[in-house]
This record gives sequence, C-alpha cells and structure tokens, in this order.
Amino acid sequence: MKNLRYSLFLLAFLPTVTFSQNLAEKLGYAKDAKLIIIHADDVGVSHSENKATFEALKKGIVNSTSMMVPVSWSAEAAKMAEEMPDLDIGIHITLTNEWENFNWGPEAGRTAVPGLANESGHMYKDCGPVAMNASPAEVEEEIRAQIKAANQMGITPTHLDSHMGCVFYGRPEYLRSYLKIAEELKIPVLLNTQIVEGIIKPNSALFEGINVDMFPIIDQLIMAEPENYTSGMENFYTDALNNLKPGFNVILIHLAFDDEEMNAVTAGHDTYHAPWRQADFDFFTSEKARELIEKNNIKLITWREIRKTLEK
Amino acid sequence: MKNLRYSLFLLAFLPTVTFSQNLAEKLGYAKDAKLIIIHADDVGVSHSENKATFEALKKGIVNSTSMMVPVSWSAEAAKMAEEMPDLDIGIHITLTNEWENFNWGPEAGRTAVPGLANESGHMYKDCGPVAMNASPAEVEEEIRAQIKAANQMGITPTHLDSHMGCVFYGRPEYLRSYLKIAEELKIPVLLNTQIVEGIIKPNSALFEGINVDMFPIIDQLIMAEPENYTSGMENFYTDALNNLKPGFNVILIHLAFDDEEMNAVTAGHDTYHAPWRQADFDFFTSEKARELIEKNNIKLITWREIRKTLEK
Repeated sequence: MKNLRYSLFLLAFLPTVTFSQNLAEKLGYAKDAKLIIIHADDVGVSHSENKATFEALKKGIVNSTSMMVPVSWSAEAAKMAEEMPDLDIGIHITLTNEWENFNWGPEAGRTAVPGLANESGHMYKDCGPVAMNASPAEVEEEIRAQIKAANQMGITPTHLDSHMGCVFYGRPEYLRSYLKIAEELKIPVLLNTQIVEGIIKPNSALFEGINVDMFPIIDQLIMAEPENYTSGMENFYTDALNNLKPGFNVILIHLAFDDEEMNAVTAGHDTYHAPWRQADFDFFTSEKARELIEKNNIKLITWREIRKTLEK
Repeated sequence: MKNLRYSLFLLAFLPTVTFSQNLAEKLGYAKDAKLIIIHADDVGVSHSENKATFEALKKGIVNSTSMMVPVSWSAEAAKMAEEMPDLDIGIHITLTNEWENFNWGPEAGRTAVPGLANESGHMYKDCGPVAMNASPAEVEEEIRAQIKAANQMGITPTHLDSHMGCVFYGRPEYLRSYLKIAEELKIPVLLNTQIVEGIIKPNSALFEGINVDMFPIIDQLIMAEPENYTSGMENFYTDALNNLKPGFNVILIHLAFDDEEMNAVTAGHDTYHAPWRQADFDFFTSEKARELIEKNNIKLITWREIRKTLEK
C-alpha cells in the first residue's frame, strides 16, 4: 500500500525540460549545482514529532518542514515555530488519517466537507477512499480551511505539499486546486516532473489558466521505502547523498522519537512508525550526514528562497 | 478560575430530600450505606491518560470513567474498553479545550456548531465563552454528535457527565438537553443536590416535561482543589474516605502519568496537570486506598448498576 502511494515519485526520471538549472541560477548557484531541501514531513502529528523535528531543524541540516494543520498538536508546532522566524514551514495538506488509535477530522468540519470524513467523522485512512468520496469543491474548501487555520496560529506558509500524496493520487481537480491556491498565495509547491508528465499534461484542459510554469519542478524526489528501512536507513541515505544528481532535489523524511507516545500513535503499523522516524532523526542529526553534504558539495536550499524567486 | 468552575459542587450540602437512601436500597444495601463511585474523568485526552486510567480500572478501586469523544485519543480509549465489556464508561460531554498546545474542535464540526468553535476552529478554553457563544441548539447537537461518535467507536455509554462542568455552568438550556438526552437513552447522569437546587428549581418552567426524579442525585461530590494538591493528595483523599457520609458519593479524579506527553498536553498549567494526575493515579492504585475503602465499610457502586435501577 505505502509503496503504491508514492509510485509517481519513484518513476524513472523522465528526460523532459528541467527547470532546475534555471532555479540554480536564480538562487545564485552554478547551473549544474546539486541543490537539496531536506524536508521533515508531518510536524504537528504528535508531541514526539514536534520535538524531534524542531531539534533537527535547530541543528541545521534538516532545513524545512510542513505542518499537519487538522491534528491536535499543530498548535504546539506553531508555538515552536515562533522561535524560528526564518524557518521554512509549509502546509502539509492533510486529507487522510492513517493511524488506528489517534484520529482527526477535516479542519473545515465534517458537516461542511462530509466527503472528507468517514462515518466516525475522521478522515479516511488512505487516498483511495478520499478520491471516491470527496468532491473537488470539498478538497478545495479543506485546503483553504487548513491554510486559514495555520494563519490563525501565526503561520504564513512558505510552501504547500501533500500528506501521503493525496493531492496527486486523488482526482486531477485536487491538484488543480493545490496549484491554484499556491498561485494565489505566490508560494511554491512540491511538484515533480512525474506529476507534470503524468497528471498535468494528460489533463491539460483542466489545468488551463493555471500558470504551472511559475513553479520550480523537482528533478529528484527521494523518500525511503519499506525495503530501505529493512536494509538500513543509514545505507539508503548515504547512497542517496553520494549519488545525488545535479538539479533540484528534495529528500522527504519523518522525524520523531521511538518513544511511548509515538509508538501509540503509529500502533499497528510497521512502516513510517516510531522506530522508522527515530532512524530518520538519528541519521539527519548525525555528523556523518553533515559531512556527506559537504563532501558531495551539495547546496542546501529552502522553499523560502525559492518563494523569493517567484516574486521576481 | 478552576476553583470557580466547580463551585456549585462545593456548596454546603443543602438539607433537601435525598434520593440516596432510596438508591442504596434499590442496589441492595442498607439505607445508611456509604456508597461511592470512584470516577476517572478525561479518558481519551491523551495516550498517557488512557494508559493510566485503564491500568487503574483493571486494579479495581477506580471503577468508572467517561470519555472525551472529540479528542484524538478517544479511538484508543474505545479500543481499550473492548477488553472490559462490563466497564462503566460514560460520555464526558466536552464543550471546552482548556490546553494551550493540544487542541480539538467540536465533534459536530465547526460549520455545524460555529458557536462552539473559536476563530481557530477549536473549542473555547473555559465555560464562560461557551455560554456566551453557543446556542442551546448547538450544544444539544454537539452532545448528540458526541454520543453518536462514541456509538460508532463501539461505546454504549453507561452515563453522562460534563467536562469542566460546562453543562452546568453554561446556560440552563444546556442542562435541559443533557437531562433530556439521558432520559431518552435511559441512562443516569452526574447530577447533585446543588445543581437541582441551584439551577433546576429556579428554572422550573424550562425543565417542565423532564423527569428529573428518574435520576439519582449525588449527595456528596468530591474533587481535589488546587489547595489540596498543594497540601498533598494523599492527605486529602485519606480524609475524604475516612469522613465519607452515608449516601451517594462520587469522587472525581484524573489519571495520567507524569510523563513527557502529558506534560506537553498540560503545558503552561499548574493544576490538573501531569504531576497532579500522577498523584491521583498513585493514590487510587495504592494498597492504602483499598484498605481505607474496606476499613470504612464503603461500598463501591457503578453507573451501570444505577442504570439498571432506572429500568425497574
């Protein structure tokens, strides 16, 4: 299941026009620079996730995060973010609630967006039922509700991305709303070549009027899969950094501690669970990770910097 | 603030007709028996609260709990309750969200019951703003939504009570809905002499048609106050049990561990916080508490037993 979720991310790189060279120059780097954002997803999902994410952000290699607004701990994440006014913090648009024992419903409320709530009022566990039940209008309303709530918590998002990729794996209209809202806010979004080729181009009529070209497209989106966890996260990330290609790269990671709370949140899951997130934390706060970035001449960039290029 | 919240509970006992003697006989005890329910509030508010509450319930002196349905951890509490089919578990009707960093909104959704949500979509921190903003119809809808959601999680509530007492400290119409719904469900409610004398009797026209007499009235409702925490919970509860009067007594306690998660949930509060809840847990799982119950010939009763008397 989890493998399928991100399958679009993992398609072999398609040799289309890349925007990354352009991005590198806009940011003041050489055309062939290896740019990277090391992005911690899911902040706000638990106290453990918040603590681990902000500890890593303060150490400095992990340099971006995005918040799950409808979850109870988002208020704590927003408070932690107050201490880091230059932080890269986006909205991790959340249309699902994958855990068994820890639940949340849509930010807009089950009455306003009934298609985003199961019979218990919580979000569905996976993108499939979301696509079957939630109308494009409901998803757009929910995205706007999450951004509004984040604003009310003091967060001006630096970018948008999508929890479990449901904006991409739902209906193409969801992706249209995601891009339209980002265009209105003049902020970048997580968007890679595969999404452009696989969803936007085949549905070009639907995307008419959306200025897709304003968004820098990620050349390589890297995220550990269950087999990488099994064979060891350190190996996987070491290889990923040693073999990073020139262009715009994003590594998506999930940071939390392997503690009582996080094990309870992720109970019944053996992927993306507490020990997985601890392994991500351990690697990306290690001296080794810092050395790999330096040794490979990798340039850490942020969504905040990218946002500025959109304004030019 | 917290002192005021429960002030109705703490008014000197008014010498009106008591129902407790009747209750004692209905339950098969002598008229002058010292009956008690030791009730753990707030299950569902955190993993820590769930774990501590169920650990105490399994040990047996603590013999009743009630669930905060709109909170993310209610699903875990419902799952834990599956293992104890004879458990006393009610709905801790939740109209407020008192914590700074851990938030929830109304179960019915902010769009359906906007008066129960602040501008961030979360519940208000205290009963005052609830009474100012939430119409009686909204509160009734929310109570019904919480019961429905609990049913969907597999819980058939044995009783109703009220988080922070907002059903009592709001508008008299809230109390009317609470009683009306309990009457429909044929379940008992937390209701004491002070509420009958202080709210129901002065608003008798409003309560017309409600069969208040069906509900056993608590003679003595005991809950630790900040000064009791300061001077030591063990002293307070020891005195309470040694001086318990004949009649229908309820002790309201709050069980959780003084751990990382619970300290984060209750951050910024110095009452009803993690160490307070640990102190409650420590006392009510101690051998001493069990001995005090026995020594004082106190009879543990449950809402489940009381519910059966309503059916007679």
